[in-house]
Amino acid sequence: MRFASFEANGRTTYGVVGTDGRYTPVPADFQARHPDLKAAIAANALGELKSLAGASLAPDQVRLLPVIPNPGKLICIGLNYKTHVAETKRADSEYPSIFLRFNDTLAAHGDEVLRPAFSTRFDWEGELAFVIGQGGRDIARENAFDHIAGYACFNDVSVRDWQKHTHQFTPGKNFPGTGPFGPYMATRDEVPDVTKLQLQTRLNGTVVQNASVGDLIFDIPTIVNYVSRFTPLSPGDVIATGTPGGVGDRREPPLYMKEGDVVEVEITGLGILRNPIGVTA
Amino acid sequence: MRFASFEANGRTTYGVVGTDGRYTPVPADFQARHPDLKAAIAANALGELKSLAGASLAPDQVRLLPVIPNPGKLICIGLNYKTHVAETKRADSEYPSIFLRFNDTLAAHGDEVLRPAFSTRFDWEGELAFVIGQGGRDIARENAFDHIAGYACFNDVSVRDWQKHTHQFTPGKNFPGTGPFGPYMATRDEVPDVTKLQLQTRLNGTVVQNASVGDLIFDIPTIVNYVSRFTPLSPGDVIATGTPGGVGDRREPPLYMKEGDVVEVEITGLGILRNPIGVTA
Repeated sequence: MRFASFEANGRTTYGVVGTDGRYTPVPADFQARHPDLKAAIAANALGELKSLAGASLAPDQVRLLPVIPNPGKLICIGLNYKTHVAETKRADSEYPSIFLRFNDTLAAHGDEVLRPAFSTRFDWEGELAFVIGQGGRDIARENAFDHIAGYACFNDVSVRDWQKHTHQFTPGKNFPGTGPFGPYMATRDEVPDVTKLQLQTRLNGTVVQNASVGDLIFDIPTIVNYVSRFTPLSPGDVIATGTPGGVGDRREPPLYMKEGDVVEVEITGLGILRNPIGVTA
Repeated sequence: MRFASFEANGRTTYGVVGTDGRYTPVPADFQARHPDLKAAIAANALGELKSLAGASLAPDQVRLLPVIPNPGKLICIGLNYKTHVAETKRADSEYPSIFLRFNDTLAAHGDEVLRPAFSTRFDWEGELAFVIGQGGRDIARENAFDHIAGYACFNDVSVRDWQKHTHQFTPGKNFPGTGPFGPYMATRDEVPDVTKLQLQTRLNGTVVQNASVGDLIFDIPTIVNYVSRFTPLSPGDVIATGTPGGVGDRREPPLYMKEGDVVEVEITGLGILRNPIGVTA
């Protein structure tokens, strides 16, 4: 099944995304028990929505939110495709590179993503993200998928000069609204083999990144194990798995996103995450 | 004035710390309006507590919590004293080094801080932390102190091998309960000149770090300005300003914290943050 968070009829809610692209909000009594998608995941209640009936809404009747607007932890993996490691001219690493984002960096499918006026090095990073279902600590590799609720597209939009002010990526990854996440989460059962997914990023329709999720250096079981060794994971936590080669900053000449551009991240079965680019005042 | 968060009489609350070391919880009606210290800061309501009366509690009648148990953002500055930059043999940087901690890394004065069983490189980092009062974005250096509610001791306890798995410090800085923060926050008016504060870290009574906050490379106005350029700051957000030279990992031979040790961070006027060291199962 596919789930999204959205506003509709003046209400902040969430619900099922049909194969026809329409949105069916959860019933009021369901939302009273599980106020948001994170809470429904924590209660393991999404299965109750399999036979969800009720009036569905057309895309233009909803305003999408980030898939999970309020993760307890928003964790990003860096340098996780050989093609990207190569273009950054960095050495291979024995361990995944980890940085964090604040929740206010999240954006929804369709939101305008704003370049800060004082930087022109505004770059895309198409990524597969997964959402934790059952929480845990020290999760074994072989049990990792049991802890995943679902998958979604993520765009780890980066302000490159601020990312490279020091070794720590934090500033360039934490400008508000620079983390589009959506349009929906497909539950794990919809993705029998995550390594078969194809990820494509397009800028104004031109393909700029194109890779198989099977090319991840640190695969999802390794990520879940490594991260859960230093921090407990909880339902609704989000981990973005890293971006493949093809970022704009490493092109000759470099190519950046500017006002009026449209960036898209598409992953097999996870829809298209599309965002126009703007600039802050 | 001095404020702490604590549990007492089965209630999670906060209140004033007297010069006699006793704790006066806020009245129930005050807490009804401002559920926690962060909320009271956001409402700019701490001044109402100047003439707070009511039964005060002895230290053994309260269980302290981290000064702010639930900051919206918990931001750490790395490499911010020349003595520490020198011992790490890193180059000077034009910008502050920034990493983030999850809230579940916070600990209270008195809490046992747990070394993960799989690492022996468990190290102290005594630091001055400040708490944001009035929030803001793009805060000018000259207005920075207007945005600070108060100051407290912080110990940025680090699992050095996990910190150095890659360039990104995140894993070694995010083991649960490795960020002692307290015992209390002194409001800004108690600290007329923050550069005059002396910071001392002691391991089992032996001084291991001793520096003036005036030796910060990036001073507090610079930190507030830089951080608020990439992320909005809100009341109750916490920024730890970095540690001076003297960490255990850079000693010859290295010196680490082990079970049964006691680590203390003391800063002029901000009390002593004392924590015993344990080990996870």
